[in-house]
Amino acid sequence: MKMKMTDPPPVKAVVLLSGGADSATCLALARKKGREVYALSFDYGQRHRIELSYARKLARRLGCRAHRVARVDLPGSAASALTSRKIRVPKGGVRPGTIPATYVPARNALFLAHALSWAEAIGAREIWIGANVIDYSGYPDCRPAFLRAFERMANLGTRAGVTGRRFQIVAPLLKLSKKEIFRLGKALGIDLRWTFSCYDPQPHGKSCGRCDSCRLRNRALADLE
Amino acid sequence: MKMKMTDPPPVKAVVLLSGGADSATCLALARKKGREVYALSFDYGQRHRIELSYARKLARRLGCRAHRVARVDLPGSAASALTSRKIRVPKGGVRPGTIPATYVPARNALFLAHALSWAEAIGAREIWIGANVIDYSGYPDCRPAFLRAFERMANLGTRAGVTGRRFQIVAPLLKLSKKEIFRLGKALGIDLRWTFSCYDPQPHGKSCGRCDSCRLRNRALADLE
Repeated sequence: MKMKMTDPPPVKAVVLLSGGADSATCLALARKKGREVYALSFDYGQRHRIELSYARKLARRLGCRAHRVARVDLPGSAASALTSRKIRVPKGGVRPGTIPATYVPARNALFLAHALSWAEAIGAREIWIGANVIDYSGYPDCRPAFLRAFERMANLGTRAGVTGRRFQIVAPLLKLSKKEIFRLGKALGIDLRWTFSCYDPQPHGKSCGRCDSCRLRNRALADLE
Repeated sequence: MKMKMTDPPPVKAVVLLSGGADSATCLALARKKGREVYALSFDYGQRHRIELSYARKLARRLGCRAHRVARVDLPGSAASALTSRKIRVPKGGVRPGTIPATYVPARNALFLAHALSWAEAIGAREIWIGANVIDYSGYPDCRPAFLRAFERMANLGTRAGVTGRRFQIVAPLLKLSKKEIFRLGKALGIDLRWTFSCYDPQPHGKSCGRCDSCRLRNRALADLE
């Protein structure tokens, strides 16, 4: 198809993609809104590194312009159950009001900073992240106030501070429950089997069924039935 | 020497260390103030990767508790003369009011996010950076407003947001000229030959003498004589 001279260029967006249901839904939404998506995943020594193979397939299925898996040499890795074999992944259920042992020090600051670097280099102004109300009840780096503060920092610490072409952190799932996210994902054509959520995969990539992430996923699935 | 029971534990600090004169002086100052220093350097595909061998020696000479060289898979690398061979390092002198081609997209946001992750994992509350007035006249990610915004973001996006044990970005060279930094470094026992500043090293690690960084260094040296 020949592009008309009057067509505006597509809006570029860097989208964080873990391979889980939330980021897949976030990405599908960005595509639905017509964004040209540059998907960004991270190999940071996570137990559930298998999520990256899901991320690669999702990026292809959902029509991303590019997908990059950045290796991150995470300095705080020893302090989280997701990246240290010395800390057990909790299996007893979510305990409200506490920060789970699966919290990775400053992970989203790091991931968003990578996204910001890429966005600035390619001229994208939007960075999409699938953070939501369940995440931010336990993880400080998913809270709306953090995301706003990151956006502010991004606009002061890049060329945007000089040119005025501002970055925006887009978190469209922020207020949605897991059930609502699954429903939205389904409406956008996401098959949950394309996604992987478990924090502590068993041999052959089988989900453990008992970590916080599995519990949230399974409860939402049961609610939907 | 036996430690008295009443001695407070040393204050831990993560210090960004490039191997240049500024970060070396910043580190020496942290040591002088009694900090237990965790020095952090980055291998991000920079042309002047030779700076890392200077950083390693500096970390030993200045008595750091630990030194870590984190590999960074910089998504914005194609957009900077420091990380892309397709962009020439400017040699014509600093042009006031412009962002130099050596600006690396969101580099300090990324570096500080790494430092934050480490600091949180080891229980350090201070992150030291050798940014200064010359840097922030050209690089947006050295401006005081950016550093303050990063600190704010850090305190919202980590356990600090819950525990109240706040992080502090310490930039003691912010208001100093290059000449003043060299003078301070000398007073703190830094030999400039231990440091490396050139953005575009020639074969055998010889400084080019004409990039912005060499020019600033050489001008300050001439002023000091």
